[in-house]
Amino acid sequence: MSSTCQSCKPEHVNFLEATFRKIFPQDNAFRDKAKTRLEQLTMPHWALGDLMDLAVDLAGMTRSLHPPVQRKRVVIMVGDHGVTAEGVSKYPSEVTAQMVYNFINGGAGINALARQAGAEVTVVDMGCAADLSALAEAGKIISKKIGTGTTNMALGPAMTRTNAVFALEAGIQVAEQFAAETDIFATGDMGIGNTTASTAIVAALSGKSIDELTGRGTGLDDAQFAQKKKVLERILQINKPDTKDGIDVLAKVGGYEIGGIAGLIIGAAANRKPVLVDGFISTAGAMIACKLEPFVRDYIICAHRSVEQGHIVMQEQIGCKPLLDLKMRLGEGTGAALAMNVVEAAVAVLTEVATFAEAGVTGTPVA
Amino acid sequence: MSSTCQSCKPEHVNFLEATFRKIFPQDNAFRDKAKTRLEQLTMPHWALGDLMDLAVDLAGMTRSLHPPVQRKRVVIMVGDHGVTAEGVSKYPSEVTAQMVYNFINGGAGINALARQAGAEVTVVDMGCAADLSALAEAGKIISKKIGTGTTNMALGPAMTRTNAVFALEAGIQVAEQFAAETDIFATGDMGIGNTTASTAIVAALSGKSIDELTGRGTGLDDAQFAQKKKVLERILQINKPDTKDGIDVLAKVGGYEIGGIAGLIIGAAANRKPVLVDGFISTAGAMIACKLEPFVRDYIICAHRSVEQGHIVMQEQIGCKPLLDLKMRLGEGTGAALAMNVVEAAVAVLTEVATFAEAGVTGTPVA
Repeated sequence: MSSTCQSCKPEHVNFLEATFRKIFPQDNAFRDKAKTRLEQLTMPHWALGDLMDLAVDLAGMTRSLHPPVQRKRVVIMVGDHGVTAEGVSKYPSEVTAQMVYNFINGGAGINALARQAGAEVTVVDMGCAADLSALAEAGKIISKKIGTGTTNMALGPAMTRTNAVFALEAGIQVAEQFAAETDIFATGDMGIGNTTASTAIVAALSGKSIDELTGRGTGLDDAQFAQKKKVLERILQINKPDTKDGIDVLAKVGGYEIGGIAGLIIGAAANRKPVLVDGFISTAGAMIACKLEPFVRDYIICAHRSVEQGHIVMQEQIGCKPLLDLKMRLGEGTGAALAMNVVEAAVAVLTEVATFAEAGVTGTPVA
Repeated sequence: MSSTCQSCKPEHVNFLEATFRKIFPQDNAFRDKAKTRLEQLTMPHWALGDLMDLAVDLAGMTRSLHPPVQRKRVVIMVGDHGVTAEGVSKYPSEVTAQMVYNFINGGAGINALARQAGAEVTVVDMGCAADLSALAEAGKIISKKIGTGTTNMALGPAMTRTNAVFALEAGIQVAEQFAAETDIFATGDMGIGNTTASTAIVAALSGKSIDELTGRGTGLDDAQFAQKKKVLERILQINKPDTKDGIDVLAKVGGYEIGGIAGLIIGAAANRKPVLVDGFISTAGAMIACKLEPFVRDYIICAHRSVEQGHIVMQEQIGCKPLLDLKMRLGEGTGAALAMNVVEAAVAVLTEVATFAEAGVTGTPVA
């Protein structure tokens, strides 16, 4: 990837490359040990299905038969999108900043679901159009602000290649900052217009059609929906992202918060921390992350299936079956927070259920 | 139903009938109030999908905009099955009692998942083949023992009509006993052979074929699976359950623990408590309960979709979409315990998320 980078400073590439080099596949020895224990539990073989598959993954990610998942953190990456000028969203860009205040006041969907799951919420300003510096100075959010929203990608690249690298780095830095006090990360997003960017990313990386991939986002009517698809066709035509180059895709048709999410996922993987990937926008970030370093995939848990149309394609592309399917389409990390309960349950199965021998239960079938 | 009862004592019918009379549909006023609030939350319309539908249901069940779900209880109904003599299960009947010891020692799958969800586990001996009186005397389980396993239903009715009524009553009594200290119930089962009984129940009540409905239970091989289907055909042919009479179906092709589950669900509904119905066996109990009193349906939450083949038919018959689909097939209440997290999340959405007005977020779409 580094050889294709023309404009970014060498040290940036070095930081990214250095992070990639810290990412290893899941540990097969721990996967096997977990599998062996799970096969001896007092229940029919693999009777807890996906929970057991997840437990094996968690053991492989964390190199532990007691994968720690107690300290949970949802990181909400925030960014605005110049492409909203094209009328692709039902809500105005101001809502992005308004929702940041809602997050820090504890009144958003993610706050309720993170509390239920026992997770901390961290808000990162990656590129909100509004000035949120007072919140950052007060320690209520983290500022990694790259700009006040991306450029309108219907007219040209959403951001420079340098800024795409900055966004990825910022996400990694957030993961690094919290790695020592976090057992499991979850991704979240806020950014009016970001289903358009995410659809452009999955279109570029999957090669599938805009028609197949585009959803109604926050709730477009038929005319708005048709407009969104038209804009998306133009975005791809004008930008022609290099589909072999994740940074180019991010720069041309992505968003600051999507870069932050990709970076967070990369940073989590480099720290051998499981990362629950939320919905449509987060999975666009995951696609970028996996494009840059495929081993990242080994640390990703797909939290849920969004109703946003292209989400299933994204999850197929990265090869990940979601844990939940509850017709959710909010983002913010809500699906990932909810899925933390499932992760905790998977660990409980691995660590708390007795084996046939331990419990004195007849494990051998009838002769 | 009472007019068709020939053998049971009048007071039994009266207790059942009296309980049915306490069951009312969900309260539409509270459903509407919940819906109104949810539509004003700081998110796109109904963006938390099934969580919001569930929140409306919970408000309707509990007549509250703050549905209590803190005090959770999984009730595991235990019973043995004479039909195991036909080689329909991979494990011997002794495992039923061994698993009861595992439950009270905290080593089973349900213990791990109930702990994760913050739920109490109550074990009820409805008809285990083994003598568990010492455990009942020590207060570790509740004894509602009707017999030491059902009669082999491949040769005739599984139990008398009187005992079927006893089983239903016992389940109601357990719900009554804990109603004051329980906000939400979950059903669980333990009983080697009980997928056969449950398959017979869904076959009788749905009219669908044994081939379509039968699964491999705890993990039968091809020869055992063929034998199970042959036995099931014989069970239905010999017993000819009256499909209009839930008590007759329970008596002829059910099980003591399945009657207990049906009773628990009826008792929960009579106390306006939500009840999370677990997998294949629990949903067979729910079918019996709904057959006896259709309004029971209004208090049922289908926790998950089991991999056991006929489960989808059961859930379609009672008209209930499950919350989770994680390839689980253990029973014990494990799926219901896991789904308690989703219920808690639904309540958090209803009670903790700010409205547009409260949060000062622009709720009106772009003009």
